[in-house]
Amino acid sequence: MEASNRPVAAVVRGEARHRDEWDVEFNRIVAFSDAVFAIAITLLVLALEVPEHSEHVWDGIVRQRGDLFAYALSFAVLGRLWIAHHRFFSVLDRFDGRLMWLNLLYLAFVAIVPYTSDVLGDYGEQTPAVILYAVGMFGVSLTFSVQIAYATRAGLVRPEVGDLEKRYAGPASFLTAVVFLASIPVAVLSPDVATLMWLLIFVVGDRIVDWLGGVLDRR
Amino acid sequence: MEASNRPVAAVVRGEARHRDEWDVEFNRIVAFSDAVFAIAITLLVLALEVPEHSEHVWDGIVRQRGDLFAYALSFAVLGRLWIAHHRFFSVLDRFDGRLMWLNLLYLAFVAIVPYTSDVLGDYGEQTPAVILYAVGMFGVSLTFSVQIAYATRAGLVRPEVGDLEKRYAGPASFLTAVVFLASIPVAVLSPDVATLMWLLIFVVGDRIVDWLGGVLDRR
Amino acid sequence: MEASNRPVAAVVRGEARHRDEWDVEFNRIVAFSDAVFAIAITLLVLALEVPEHSEHVWDGIVRQRGDLFAYALSFAVLGRLWIAHHRFFSVLDRFDGRLMWLNLLYLAFVAIVPYTSDVLGDYGEQTPAVILYAVGMFGVSLTFSVQIAYATRAGLVRPEVGDLEKRYAGPASFLTAVVFLASIPVAVLSPDVATLMWLLIFVVGDRIVDWLGGVLDRR
Amino acid sequence: MEASNRPVAAVVRGEARHRDEWDVEFNRIVAFSDAVFAIAITLLVLALEVPEHSEHVWDGIVRQRGDLFAYALSFAVLGRLWIAHHRFFSVLDRFDGRLMWLNLLYLAFVAIVPYTSDVLGDYGEQTPAVILYAVGMFGVSLTFSVQIAYATRAGLVRPEVGDLEKRYAGPASFLTAVVFLASIPVAVLSPDVATLMWLLIFVVGDRIVDWLGGVLDRR
Repeated sequence: MEASNRPVAAVVRGEARHRDEWDVEFNRIVAFSDAVFAIAITLLVLALEVPEHSEHVWDGIVRQRGDLFAYALSFAVLGRLWIAHHRFFSVLDRFDGRLMWLNLLYLAFVAIVPYTSDVLGDYGEQTPAVILYAVGMFGVSLTFSVQIAYATRAGLVRPEVGDLEKRYAGPASFLTAVVFLASIPVAVLSPDVATLMWLLIFVVGDRIVDWLGGVLDRR
Repeated sequence: MEASNRPVAAVVRGEARHRDEWDVEFNRIVAFSDAVFAIAITLLVLALEVPEHSEHVWDGIVRQRGDLFAYALSFAVLGRLWIAHHRFFSVLDRFDGRLMWLNLLYLAFVAIVPYTSDVLGDYGEQTPAVILYAVGMFGVSLTFSVQIAYATRAGLVRPEVGDLEKRYAGPASFLTAVVFLASIPVAVLSPDVATLMWLLIFVVGDRIVDWLGGVLDRR
Repeated sequence: MEASNRPVAAVVRGEARHRDEWDVEFNRIVAFSDAVFAIAITLLVLALEVPEHSEHVWDGIVRQRGDLFAYALSFAVLGRLWIAHHRFFSVLDRFDGRLMWLNLLYLAFVAIVPYTSDVLGDYGEQTPAVILYAVGMFGVSLTFSVQIAYATRAGLVRPEVGDLEKRYAGPASFLTAVVFLASIPVAVLSPDVATLMWLLIFVVGDRIVDWLGGVLDRR
Repeated sequence: MEASNRPVAAVVRGEARHRDEWDVEFNRIVAFSDAVFAIAITLLVLALEVPEHSEHVWDGIVRQRGDLFAYALSFAVLGRLWIAHHRFFSVLDRFDGRLMWLNLLYLAFVAIVPYTSDVLGDYGEQTPAVILYAVGMFGVSLTFSVQIAYATRAGLVRPEVGDLEKRYAGPASFLTAVVFLASIPVAVLSPDVATLMWLLIFVVGDRIVDWLGGVLDRR
């Protein structure tokens, strides 16, 4: 009686559970996160505007340059975030109620990207639009860093990867948060320089992965 | 022949089936519910409006305060509902045609949240918008209570958790229904007080979980 | 070599394959169909319009009566279709390329419901909107009937349910197709009577399920 | 220690992993791709416009002819692409970080179809709209060809199908890319002829499948 009650009580109180014992529940969280990512990434297309006057279709399409840049940037950023999330969850051993809430908070920032991206596409040369986008992305990377830090400290990560995560995923996502935070004051002086800083993440980020990969190989 | 026909006839007549024997079908219902939640929660972003005039981008963003509050509130409410739904389905043992219909009715209220949330974001300081949101949320919590009550009475819940559900999930979701119902007359006098009542659910709800957790421990 | 090549050639040529051997592929089709249903059912909410003037919020909400009726009707219809699709796929034994295409054609009619429902919500008292909705729904039920008929004839259904399907699912979905087809000329005379005919499907449909259930029991 | 670290290091560095050992991760990629397809195909409906004036509902519906053609065409094209993607992933043996990025790039072109389709529906008789659609579709088929070519060369495809893929899927998707590319200059002279060229893919494509099926049989 006691034994059969315990797992249910664990669900009710949001206690940490092992992913293999609770694989339906674990997979539901993963699937839900994936769905939010997939919907957010596909809703980006709604920012592109169909030309209104049939005489100037070409002009109308060309005027979407800013929107197309924002579409490509946000697709790449969300894609990168999704792959990182995918990697993080693949090294998770267990999950608890708090991690589910942190994940939801993170998804709230992911799901708002179609809005900040839409504003960026329309007013990308102006400071407020660039700041809005940077704040949203800072929120995404910060909540992701917090998720990783919490999971590591609460012992939810597979034991053999604790060190690896501390050295790799933590700094990588924290660095992203710092770059987006630093781009906010920069955007006041020059929106273009702030945008360039974001693009650097893709280059710098990959370098860090390579460099860390080298460190891992030498161990 | 008879034996092999029985399960199919059970499907056709919507009879109660065990989740392990019909795991593909059970998982489809779970996945469908999750998808509706994920889409509804991601569609919330469509309520945020892109500024229309390029001279006042900052003003346009600031004017979205009400929409951002409604986004955060609805994301939290839908997230909470999803976790509760997730817990409810994890203690289900079997399902039948009636539960599927109740679940669909429940999802119809879930899927309308992006609309009531949009209205709340635009006219949150006015009584009609607050009432509309409260009515929608009352519908969600009521149909969820009905689902739990039906599943418990029809013996669809895992035997060992019958008591637990009666003590925990039932009252918790019923309480939410009552708070939203009570907030309707309050909204006539003061929309702000009604909104505050909703926010209390998050505090009160967690207290109840803790308190019930304590009760469960003492058993 | 030959043996290992055969399954791949079967995939390439879209030959009938058993669901257990190709469960990843089968589950992908099911998951894709479910996703289209879930998205279409959740997009219905976009038909509801947020009031434009802050002085008349209440009027703006009340004016959505037609839209709310269309939302409820379409949610119920899509929910019913989804349950029927769910039952059909649970008795499938195998699938082939043709069934996948028929299923896609069927999904094209499912995915257009948010549009026909939106038009119905705005102009439900007018003949063109009612005809448009009926044509769309006729397309859904016809393509579903064709799918069932094809799967039965091509021997894709579990052997023990061949008869059952012929007696049950076939006529039921065919009846729905006939009612929607018959409602088209009726809508020319009276849109309201046509709408009532649709609502009858829910009553008649359930009666038929009960009646067929009785027939099955007597066997 | 070393052994247990290796798989994690493989995840971090995006090394090729076997789908059976990493089935949760593999299934997540497949599910994510399917979700993007399902959302994009269902968002096509948003291109259809609800008539604005209640006196001319019929005219408003009839004026959607172009949009309905674009809806049907894009649904068929995305459906065809999804089936091809489905087949490609069913013969994959392993996956790596590069394939995930190529797949994301491919999905970025898939997710933009609701936009190019919307423009085509509104201005299908004009050269710019036809070129935009052709460029988008060229992007889809090219990135798909690149994915197949990369997976084949990197040895990610099941060994027994290497030859088959080279002979079948490669040329088929490459041919589609060529037709869309060729339709761009044609659209400058006649948008209608360019559109006809696309429709030919459905006929020619199926012929090629039949012809290749025959070749495979004779082996």
